[in-house]
Amino acid sequence: MELDVQTLAAGIDTVWVLLCAALVFFMEAGFAFLEAGFIRAKNSLNIVMKVFMDCTVGILSYWAIGFAVMYGLDKAGLFGTSGFFIQGDFSHLGLRIPVYAFWLFQAAFAVAVASIVSGAVAERMKFAPYIIYSIVTCAIIYPVAGHWIWSADGWLAQLGMKDFAGSAAVHAVGGWSALAAVLVLGPRTGKYNPDGSVNVLPAHNMHLAALGAFILWVGWFGFNPGSALTGLDSNIARIAVTTNLAAAAGGTMGTLYTMFKYGKPDPSMTINGVLAGLVAVTAGTAFVSPAGAVVIGAVAGVLVVLAVPFFDKLKADDPVGAIAVHGVCGSFGALAVGIFAEDGGLLYGGGFHLLEVQALGLLAVSAWAFGVSYLTFYLIKKTVGVRVSADEELEGLDLVEHGIPAYSGNALNQGLDGLPAPDFGVCPAVGEIKQKLAT
Amino acid sequence: MELDVQTLAAGIDTVWVLLCAALVFFMEAGFAFLEAGFIRAKNSLNIVMKVFMDCTVGILSYWAIGFAVMYGLDKAGLFGTSGFFIQGDFSHLGLRIPVYAFWLFQAAFAVAVASIVSGAVAERMKFAPYIIYSIVTCAIIYPVAGHWIWSADGWLAQLGMKDFAGSAAVHAVGGWSALAAVLVLGPRTGKYNPDGSVNVLPAHNMHLAALGAFILWVGWFGFNPGSALTGLDSNIARIAVTTNLAAAAGGTMGTLYTMFKYGKPDPSMTINGVLAGLVAVTAGTAFVSPAGAVVIGAVAGVLVVLAVPFFDKLKADDPVGAIAVHGVCGSFGALAVGIFAEDGGLLYGGGFHLLEVQALGLLAVSAWAFGVSYLTFYLIKKTVGVRVSADEELEGLDLVEHGIPAYSGNALNQGLDGLPAPDFGVCPAVGEIKQKLAT
Amino acid sequence: MELDVQTLAAGIDTVWVLLCAALVFFMEAGFAFLEAGFIRAKNSLNIVMKVFMDCTVGILSYWAIGFAVMYGLDKAGLFGTSGFFIQGDFSHLGLRIPVYAFWLFQAAFAVAVASIVSGAVAERMKFAPYIIYSIVTCAIIYPVAGHWIWSADGWLAQLGMKDFAGSAAVHAVGGWSALAAVLVLGPRTGKYNPDGSVNVLPAHNMHLAALGAFILWVGWFGFNPGSALTGLDSNIARIAVTTNLAAAAGGTMGTLYTMFKYGKPDPSMTINGVLAGLVAVTAGTAFVSPAGAVVIGAVAGVLVVLAVPFFDKLKADDPVGAIAVHGVCGSFGALAVGIFAEDGGLLYGGGFHLLEVQALGLLAVSAWAFGVSYLTFYLIKKTVGVRVSADEELEGLDLVEHGIPAYSGNALNQGLDGLPAPDFGVCPAVGEIKQKLAT
Repeated sequence: MELDVQTLAAGIDTVWVLLCAALVFFMEAGFAFLEAGFIRAKNSLNIVMKVFMDCTVGILSYWAIGFAVMYGLDKAGLFGTSGFFIQGDFSHLGLRIPVYAFWLFQAAFAVAVASIVSGAVAERMKFAPYIIYSIVTCAIIYPVAGHWIWSADGWLAQLGMKDFAGSAAVHAVGGWSALAAVLVLGPRTGKYNPDGSVNVLPAHNMHLAALGAFILWVGWFGFNPGSALTGLDSNIARIAVTTNLAAAAGGTMGTLYTMFKYGKPDPSMTINGVLAGLVAVTAGTAFVSPAGAVVIGAVAGVLVVLAVPFFDKLKADDPVGAIAVHGVCGSFGALAVGIFAEDGGLLYGGGFHLLEVQALGLLAVSAWAFGVSYLTFYLIKKTVGVRVSADEELEGLDLVEHGIPAYSGNALNQGLDGLPAPDFGVCPAVGEIKQKLAT
Repeated sequence: MELDVQTLAAGIDTVWVLLCAALVFFMEAGFAFLEAGFIRAKNSLNIVMKVFMDCTVGILSYWAIGFAVMYGLDKAGLFGTSGFFIQGDFSHLGLRIPVYAFWLFQAAFAVAVASIVSGAVAERMKFAPYIIYSIVTCAIIYPVAGHWIWSADGWLAQLGMKDFAGSAAVHAVGGWSALAAVLVLGPRTGKYNPDGSVNVLPAHNMHLAALGAFILWVGWFGFNPGSALTGLDSNIARIAVTTNLAAAAGGTMGTLYTMFKYGKPDPSMTINGVLAGLVAVTAGTAFVSPAGAVVIGAVAGVLVVLAVPFFDKLKADDPVGAIAVHGVCGSFGALAVGIFAEDGGLLYGGGFHLLEVQALGLLAVSAWAFGVSYLTFYLIKKTVGVRVSADEELEGLDLVEHGIPAYSGNALNQGLDGLPAPDFGVCPAVGEIKQKLAT
Repeated sequence: MELDVQTLAAGIDTVWVLLCAALVFFMEAGFAFLEAGFIRAKNSLNIVMKVFMDCTVGILSYWAIGFAVMYGLDKAGLFGTSGFFIQGDFSHLGLRIPVYAFWLFQAAFAVAVASIVSGAVAERMKFAPYIIYSIVTCAIIYPVAGHWIWSADGWLAQLGMKDFAGSAAVHAVGGWSALAAVLVLGPRTGKYNPDGSVNVLPAHNMHLAALGAFILWVGWFGFNPGSALTGLDSNIARIAVTTNLAAAAGGTMGTLYTMFKYGKPDPSMTINGVLAGLVAVTAGTAFVSPAGAVVIGAVAGVLVVLAVPFFDKLKADDPVGAIAVHGVCGSFGALAVGIFAEDGGLLYGGGFHLLEVQALGLLAVSAWAFGVSYLTFYLIKKTVGVRVSADEELEGLDLVEHGIPAYSGNALNQGLDGLPAPDFGVCPAVGEIKQKLAT
């Protein structure tokens, strides 16, 4: 192989994009455990299984169809028409990296959109229909929205919409799809009382949720800087910094705001604050200053704390806060570009033009995602059915759908007393009492 | 430092290989938690400790001996004879990267082989003898097989065997070593009934197992593309794609096949299906098309579901399915190269020659690994002993071997009722009842 | 963009440093779960929250002040005076990578120092004051010590102190700060008996601790080699090797030494042995031979086993062993450079000069860190208060400070019997007994 600068440049970019793709793909573990930790144990294995469906069936769907719809030769600025199964000519993409590297990075984004929805439908959606939805999201819902914004010929790209790593294309699309899903599904049994008051259905394992959050944060080191698709643009460093400062500001505000509002810092809001900051800065990460990123993250950290109870008022039951984090803060992030972008932003003398374009684009992709997701869930509901029965919901989806619990009693019992499971049921002392009673 | 293209090329390759080595090393956490989650809590800390032995004692063993046996100056195509402690001349390797980068990447592979076996011997093998086995695997068993296939002068390399990242060299070697270990050890107490029926010994924590699977999957982003040892070959992108498509197809089939066969998708088979796809494509990842990778992964996803009950029929008790995933699917993957390789594969008009070479090579390394592992375990059994006593097995290896449980009762009890542990045993209500009884 | 070798070189270095920064940042998850796993469940969420404060408030603190104090224009070799908010001129740093990449890598180090302390103060320190300490550490305590050693004009750098990735600057500073914190805080209720004997307060989840250890180990693939700040220096490969060999030797000795001393290998000492090896080799990783790294790691693996009971004798109650791992082994590592450095080390004929410089530097940064941390904790104690009440300590910090447990009863109960939580308390059998009693 001849070592010219072109070969070296392509090598640097390929190494960078592949490793960033690994970081973004790792986010699937983040989604799985964030969601599993935030819900009750009896449904927690089922949600991990749904995320696995995104990573397996969803990836095949993006390979066969989605990538072509998103990045194939453009049709009227609306969708792509070539490149199914990564076959054919991709010269119109003008890539220096191999198209396979580009596909892998994009595929990790597609499954992320599906996984955003998986959290909102937790604890009551049937497993098989979820597979259908995951396929539709990775094949059509996300790719069409992505085409509009990220394909050079997409109609929103043509209008000049700026969404660097996808506050709108990924997060708002995922978040508003989640809202549609939740409205069709209805709330979990026992979540809302007749008087409108809200019951807390406890997070079964906050360490699992925190692990998910840390993994998502680390994944964002690839998500945002990797979207530059090159390691030779020194801006990737600034992008990584704005990303992390926004996350820090979001987590700080999520913590402090709940500390002052409720007297105690709420761990779930520290976690969601960090994610809110990351989601919100994703559109502007390459366009705003570090200070701008801090402001965006801080606002998102407060927004998410306000948004969670807001959707509960609407009885839109979202067990993990996906709508608040991805829908609300993704939307805010898309608009924030129009305000904080150093080139064209309102605060930098750019006037309202960019903000208007961002608002129009956000509205368009949100309406598309909400509409098609609503339709998809509605059709699923009317055909194969979308929700488990009340009895099944009481028993829990892990046993109903998969036949095994996330945690084995025998195992945890061993954990309980540091001894092997006794023969007489779950509590050693209980056997002893039973014996007393027997005599 | 002068910045010529050679320096830059070496830098790109070194950065790539070191970061891929980090990903592959991370797989040790994947093995540890996949295995710990799939078994009962009372033995789960012991298995994590065994994986730690692979990462510590095993790495020192590969440093002192294994690397020299694998990549030292060749003796008759059978083993290497120089380079102990990474000392001496390695010019025969023709590396552009520093030998230290090459060693680190290879060391992460060596400990993976040992960790494959750790799962199969779970819940009954003594700790100290495991250390001996880990040393032998990293010093001799894996390095000799690796030399045959991957050393330029190895006899299988000379025959033209193709095993890009080690379906045979790593996974079949690990899997068939695990079979040998299990046959010497015997099944866990209570696994098989006199009438030949099989008892399910429950997975104590499926989230831990799923975490392990996600980490292993992410690690494969380094395992396969990193095996190119360069960031300048654009094929690394295609390798990453075939790797992920095979994993997706394997997980899809593991899920769908159990869904149709048993009525419910089995999470352990979704997980093992993903791993089966990854293991199977590892040999051909650089030689097969994306579509070929999907077929290989899909077949592996079904094979693993069939293989698990098959080995149970043989009373070869493998608590985590390591033999099915690594032995069976690794073997299939090595053969699949002879069928699906675009250059020389049966389906591409290459005839049977490559398939025959692959079969011969697979047979050779499998026989070597099974034989030497069987001998090693047999000698351990006859000397220091290989298995804990029946009583110790009942009590659990965590307490017997390490004196502490994986989970502390006091801690989980706190978890149980959201309050500190009461004074009167594991269930608050129990104390109350005891008081009633006392009066 | 013109593709000259300078652009390519800067690209390689930037990609390398950004990805290493991601690995180092991931270590925050490692600290969080190592610490959470080693303590009782009732306080385990609180400690994860404290680590989140390091990653959020701490990062903002390093952005606003810390980085300027550490790497701004030098004042008398003592501290920096420019570059607040990463503003201004950084040409004096002579970086080829963007200053933003340098900042991100350094920021991940700063939060690590704070997180070292978080473990030692576990189970009794109030949450709000911890935020204050995290800010002070990231703004002043660590940056001043870092300036002395790593700023070209720092007085210890001028003396020729060698601390490649921070056994002294990061780990000794964190470890001795932790000792100061623990002395002001006092031990946990029930840890020490009047007769001086020590009670074991059990680790609630060893898998969580092991996960933390694996993540920290993987993070060190970025921590040490990344500190070269370039991907073009082939020594980064040797650095990665010395790092991993020291970790392997430390884990091996931690295991074997407890195996021979107590009859059983102690998992917490396998984990702390690995970390001890990593911490100890961090100063010399670029200066010592692989064999030297093995010796350093092995010694550290024994030191940590001896240091834990030593601090218990002093009633310096450190729930996770942070003082032993980071304070003792970090100090040993800084001195070990003077002994094992191939250039200037005592064993290589360099005489005592380097060892003296290392000792002086270690003494200086340790005294600074211990003194200022002691003062900070003392002032906090005298003002807002530093410790929760005895009742709060009994109840657990998760409920007292955050209002929720790490694990939800309903959830674990589901885990217990594989069924939804019964209406009548935590143990199904208990309800049955209650009914019997009622009749």
